[in-house]
Amino acid sequence: METSLLPDGCAYIDGRTMPIAEAAIPVTDFGYRRSDVTYDVVSVWGGAFFRLDDHIKRFRASMRSIRLDPPESDDDIRKILTECVRRTGLREAYVAMDCLRGRPKPGLPRHPVNCRNYIVAFAIPWVWVMPPEMQARGAHLIVAKTPRIADESVDPKVKNFHWGDLTRGLFEAHDQGADNCVLTDGKGFVTEGPGYNVFSITGGAVATSDHGALEGITRLSVKELCAELDIPFAIRKLPVEELKDADEIFLATTAGGIMPASRIDGRIMGNDRPGPISSRLRETFWKKRAEGWHATPIAY
Amino acid sequence: METSLLPDGCAYIDGRTMPIAEAAIPVTDFGYRRSDVTYDVVSVWGGAFFRLDDHIKRFRASMRSIRLDPPESDDDIRKILTECVRRTGLREAYVAMDCLRGRPKPGLPRHPVNCRNYIVAFAIPWVWVMPPEMQARGAHLIVAKTPRIADESVDPKVKNFHWGDLTRGLFEAHDQGADNCVLTDGKGFVTEGPGYNVFSITGGAVATSDHGALEGITRLSVKELCAELDIPFAIRKLPVEELKDADEIFLATTAGGIMPASRIDGRIMGNDRPGPISSRLRETFWKKRAEGWHATPIAY
Repeated sequence: METSLLPDGCAYIDGRTMPIAEAAIPVTDFGYRRSDVTYDVVSVWGGAFFRLDDHIKRFRASMRSIRLDPPESDDDIRKILTECVRRTGLREAYVAMDCLRGRPKPGLPRHPVNCRNYIVAFAIPWVWVMPPEMQARGAHLIVAKTPRIADESVDPKVKNFHWGDLTRGLFEAHDQGADNCVLTDGKGFVTEGPGYNVFSITGGAVATSDHGALEGITRLSVKELCAELDIPFAIRKLPVEELKDADEIFLATTAGGIMPASRIDGRIMGNDRPGPISSRLRETFWKKRAEGWHATPIAY
Repeated sequence: METSLLPDGCAYIDGRTMPIAEAAIPVTDFGYRRSDVTYDVVSVWGGAFFRLDDHIKRFRASMRSIRLDPPESDDDIRKILTECVRRTGLREAYVAMDCLRGRPKPGLPRHPVNCRNYIVAFAIPWVWVMPPEMQARGAHLIVAKTPRIADESVDPKVKNFHWGDLTRGLFEAHDQGADNCVLTDGKGFVTEGPGYNVFSITGGAVATSDHGALEGITRLSVKELCAELDIPFAIRKLPVEELKDADEIFLATTAGGIMPASRIDGRIMGNDRPGPISSRLRETFWKKRAEGWHATPIAY
């Protein structure tokens, strides 16, 4: 076994382990060429996975939903992810797991049913969806004109790379001098943003969308924190007008945790700084993580 | 310069040429990880490209539309594609050109605006979307329950890998013992299928959808053939009920040309064989191509 560390990242592809710089997908793979792939991302912070089993469980459900069946078991995946992190030596890492459709087996028709599915996983240095200084001042958001891809066409609960709409929203934000965006369903309701769930706080109660959005693991953490802190929490239809008029807004994602916003469509919330409930949730989130909440320590 | 042929395929990635087996995309590239990429496919038949300039023109328009700006000019792309085919020695080839977003430049925020875009191109042995024997008996189609991703979310005129809906449709077809599928817009109108435009013939007139579909280059060829053969042709809203009740149906794509269908949702059209107008269009298409119609011969 190699013992030299790979601090830039370590990847696993279909049985083989390699430095991240060598990790690549064939240009003819349906995983790239048809974006026929699902994925998940788990964080490592302070040398421990956060909610590892929740991520693997969701990853398996996503694979089943779009009929992907790789050779690796859940326990294999757990070991692969751990080994990828261990090989990097990183205490804070962004750890991804993808399952790709693959390519049609030789001699069989070009149909997804004839492909050999496989797993790609990798650990790289921690990635912030929004840098800490942006989180400290609060994100500046816009509500994008581009609507989110409808649930009926592509199931947002199966984490996917169909980001054309989200990328368009990111350019809309950029053109308006904002940091990031929130997409609607085109019918007046909030969905999600590029890589995060969106939360509105009005009158002390937290709400997030029940459709057009991933069932976020960090969203689950927010729900647990709200129960603990006695803050009302609901997953329901969230009108855009309610969001735009909210007392506070925050975002939640694996690669960033709980991230407060301070502006939406130019409107300044509170004191142009993260609101009190968002800040309390964010602080409690990181405090509990430092204490080992839902943690799976890694033996380096 | 290497002179050995690469009959399995030859690829170009961002300035380098290689055998297709070595052509791969980094797992961290936005082109894979956010499907932030556009592409085009041109066919080589009898040693000549078909409508090469039309494909490069559409490819450039797609890149501009989603703000991709690779270093290669249109003339560079023309030379790269020609060289890829030449290196394979193939007289019939599937030739793809992709432009990927790339990865954020070091030290810059993870925003698509900060990425270095690049071109991937490759030539591989000819791929049939439907094998010739299926075309001879006529494809068995279903109308999928999964609706096509809406134009407002992802522009179907910008050729893209957002195939989640189309893949679901392919599984629906497979489960029903059919060959392939047609997707609707979820509001009663036809859009397209996985990789092809869909055409309905009723009372001697050809019609295809004006939304939810790629502006196919083969569709353009169909339009030209209809003008030549004095067959009425329209690009308009095409009701699903009209398609299901059509005298004939055919499909059109670069990787297959004009492909007649003989069944839809179990209903047998005509004599369970390709209809007369579809067959005439298909025969004329291949006859004209053999005669050099819109051809750019390759100097091997």
